[in-house]
Amino acid sequence: MQESPVPRASLASGEDRQNLDLKLKQVAIDTHLENVVYLNRDCLIYRIEGFQALSKVEVVSGEGRITATLNVVDDPYIVGRDEIGLSEDAFRRFGVAAGAMACVRHAEKPASIGALFRKINGERLGRDDYHAIVKDISTGHYSKIELTAFLIATNNGELDRDEIYYLTDAMVASGRRLQWSEHMVVDKHCIGGIPGNRTSMLVVPIVAAHGLLCPKTSSRAITSPAGTADTMEVLANVNLDQEKLAAIVREHRACLAWGGTADLSPADDVMISVERPLSLDSTTQMIASILSKKIAAGSTHLILDIPIGPSAKVKSVPDAQRLRKLFEYVASRMSLKLEVVITDGRQPIGNGIGPMLEARDVMRVLENDARAPQDLRHKALHLAGRMIEFDPDVRGGDGYAIARDILESGRALEKMHAIINAQGAKPFDHNNFTLGRLSHEVVAARDGMVIGIDNLQIAQVARLAGAPKVANAGVDIRRKLGDRVKQGDSLYTIYAEYPSDLIFAMQQCEKGSGYLIGDETQVSHSYLEF
Amino acid sequence: MQESPVPRASLASGEDRQNLDLKLKQVAIDTHLENVVYLNRDCLIYRIEGFQALSKVEVVSGEGRITATLNVVDDPYIVGRDEIGLSEDAFRRFGVAAGAMACVRHAEKPASIGALFRKINGERLGRDDYHAIVKDISTGHYSKIELTAFLIATNNGELDRDEIYYLTDAMVASGRRLQWSEHMVVDKHCIGGIPGNRTSMLVVPIVAAHGLLCPKTSSRAITSPAGTADTMEVLANVNLDQEKLAAIVREHRACLAWGGTADLSPADDVMISVERPLSLDSTTQMIASILSKKIAAGSTHLILDIPIGPSAKVKSVPDAQRLRKLFEYVASRMSLKLEVVITDGRQPIGNGIGPMLEARDVMRVLENDARAPQDLRHKALHLAGRMIEFDPDVRGGDGYAIARDILESGRALEKMHAIINAQGAKPFDHNNFTLGRLSHEVVAARDGMVIGIDNLQIAQVARLAGAPKVANAGVDIRRKLGDRVKQGDSLYTIYAEYPSDLIFAMQQCEKGSGYLIGDETQVSHSYLEF
Repeated sequence: MQESPVPRASLASGEDRQNLDLKLKQVAIDTHLENVVYLNRDCLIYRIEGFQALSKVEVVSGEGRITATLNVVDDPYIVGRDEIGLSEDAFRRFGVAAGAMACVRHAEKPASIGALFRKINGERLGRDDYHAIVKDISTGHYSKIELTAFLIATNNGELDRDEIYYLTDAMVASGRRLQWSEHMVVDKHCIGGIPGNRTSMLVVPIVAAHGLLCPKTSSRAITSPAGTADTMEVLANVNLDQEKLAAIVREHRACLAWGGTADLSPADDVMISVERPLSLDSTTQMIASILSKKIAAGSTHLILDIPIGPSAKVKSVPDAQRLRKLFEYVASRMSLKLEVVITDGRQPIGNGIGPMLEARDVMRVLENDARAPQDLRHKALHLAGRMIEFDPDVRGGDGYAIARDILESGRALEKMHAIINAQGAKPFDHNNFTLGRLSHEVVAARDGMVIGIDNLQIAQVARLAGAPKVANAGVDIRRKLGDRVKQGDSLYTIYAEYPSDLIFAMQQCEKGSGYLIGDETQVSHSYLEF
Repeated sequence: MQESPVPRASLASGEDRQNLDLKLKQVAIDTHLENVVYLNRDCLIYRIEGFQALSKVEVVSGEGRITATLNVVDDPYIVGRDEIGLSEDAFRRFGVAAGAMACVRHAEKPASIGALFRKINGERLGRDDYHAIVKDISTGHYSKIELTAFLIATNNGELDRDEIYYLTDAMVASGRRLQWSEHMVVDKHCIGGIPGNRTSMLVVPIVAAHGLLCPKTSSRAITSPAGTADTMEVLANVNLDQEKLAAIVREHRACLAWGGTADLSPADDVMISVERPLSLDSTTQMIASILSKKIAAGSTHLILDIPIGPSAKVKSVPDAQRLRKLFEYVASRMSLKLEVVITDGRQPIGNGIGPMLEARDVMRVLENDARAPQDLRHKALHLAGRMIEFDPDVRGGDGYAIARDILESGRALEKMHAIINAQGAKPFDHNNFTLGRLSHEVVAARDGMVIGIDNLQIAQVARLAGAPKVANAGVDIRRKLGDRVKQGDSLYTIYAEYPSDLIFAMQQCEKGSGYLIGDETQVSHSYLEF
């Protein structure tokens, strides 16, 4: 048996390492949120470290440090033996100049991995565990696999209310927290799932015109055909840096911006990068995501819209009440004043579904245009009224009338224009939105009354038609619940910009239009506030 | 409001599509198990389809079809505007010649995604659901994210015993199933977690020498410092195609091969690609993985070793009994005769930990060398004896003596050499295994008796030293439970081939040697069979 020599004296001197430094370059490959590092198979460190394709490695250069997934390259044009390549976004995030010397090593497991495994095994975690996990997530130390494991292990029903609070609190702590130096900062949010439901773009100008401070940041669509940020983007720039946003809010009492640039609850954005491809919709994540974003944005008072309906996220009043309680508990632990409004989610709100079509509806309501969808107008006034009643000078029950006056007087429209111009107006003419160049009518197969509209099916058709990525694609609804139709009447129009999109959407409609036509007696009546 | 034109008549003709075909090329980037497709950002279809980096797409050319993740390229050298690139393994899997025309489109969600979501939401799934999911997994239709979601949602305790049976059955059905045309095909398996525990390489030659048919296929290490396949590979080729393996088994009644090449339960291999980076160890997956591999390999009789100890996978007798019951239930539904043996897992078995060190121990036992570790020898004889008792001609209780006779007579060594030569012997001299060129002694900090050895810590040190990737790295144990030591006595030696590996392993030892030194009265006595 041969005995091996003792370690060489040079081991601790770092000499070994220095010879293994590589010259940094950017590889012209876009791998989006996933950091990829490219090493030549013949490069010395690749062989010494026993790396393997898809290993998680850490690249270090001076102060720069980034975790990435390894791809091994067999073409010296892409990266040579003495080079280390980073994918485009990773190179930008790394922030070190091309040509600098960098070294690479096995990435250590994130510090919170033990806590993650305790959660996977069904344990209850404490405040420190959630802070450690969320910190690792927001700083990019979790791989996609680890991130997915966390999201599934904390899915519906796996967390108790205190754990949801810890998670929310940790998400707030993971990023910036805005201070508005005012006693009351109002906001509204809908849990989503209802196509067309673009009330924020009405509520915000109304309440700001009343004088409330409402610095609204919204997300882009995850699984829906349009988010508020996507829709507002048709009218104005929504990518505002924090200074610009603050200046706009100071001057106009409001904004309608995308929340992604403000570093608010950044862990949430990372988690969405997995929730999106998985189409995951978890109650836990919903509560933590919504409340952390609002609190980080500095909100003190929040109106939360929970729609109920057979194809809404929440199907029944008991489910809505359970969800309300959870939201209220976490909000109260976070010292956020929360008012939950349970609304009618049996069908889409408004007519247009897709960023441009929804922007059109919003502008029609603000302009008091006769073609404005009345359900959208009514719902927005109701929510704005409840929000105005946060104002201690307004008597309970007076909010709706105040909101209506602001809308009808044109003050809401004026405020909206001020916000649009401050954020940077897009060159559009709202009398002539250019919708997708291709269209298709979906018609009633029989005479009768519209007794059901499937939100999910309508949303899916709009997405296949191209929304939200193609802003002028989507669905324009012609008939609502309770409307009478004759065979061949248009139920809705699909708009698309690209042939293949239209074909996908039409194929989906062939499986089912999303409309149920029946008799007058079969229309379900709403038992809700509105 | 401008109305859009109706769709062009050419839409359904496929004309649009044909113009979008791209020329296939291999991109010299190794992305291992992850299929990656490279499209130039200026390529027409990229813009038309609204793809985005990391989209899941399907590439089609003639009969060829593959699902891949999209990377977007900004360098026409890597892929041009009229080209479509595939990463190295993906190109090979696609099986279409470079230069062929291919088209690309959005990948459809796997058919079983609905079932996956029902499981995520805590529902019990049926037989058809598991077959659909496992089929999608084994054919590469699940992304890493979807795969992780499935593994976490079916983790410990989430599946009842019938669901584990359905999963196992589906995994068997996902691949090839070997037929040996004999009444009895025996095998053994350990659930793992005990470093050094290399009994298979002893049991297989012993029982084959007795005449039993034992076509053993093993896995490589997932989270341990060595698997049977890694260790056997020190001595012989283990990558055998099915024909070669069958021929060896026909001639020698046994083999010791890697299971990965035989297309047995291929879904299991895909799942391991996520379990490995996550270090996930789920009871559900363990049962389904072990039993599906054994049944697909044609086994009719199985000895299953469940070690118990404070740092073993199973900590207590009640836990072991629960696990035994689950294994027995699923095995009986699958018509596999299963014998569970609960063993002492308080410390590593044998001395060497790491492929070469373990191969050395195995050969010493087979050669009846005085330096052979007695615990490994005794355990292997016990397991072999139980397996020999599957033979209806052997009386219960006689197996151990038969096994010992076979070992002591040299017939086991002779059988092992026959297997090694048949599989393809590696050029090694077992009297002079060349261990890692660097070594470090970990010594006792005080006088006393060894009263505890942490399996996990020892395994971790061996892995950091380079095992199993560096075959001659690992840990050689000098003291076992109950041994007396003086301060400064060696507890174990670390072997490494590369300086950085040795440093990592030494740093780990500084956190804790893995040994507990105490008084004679504190040694826990084993209450187990052996």
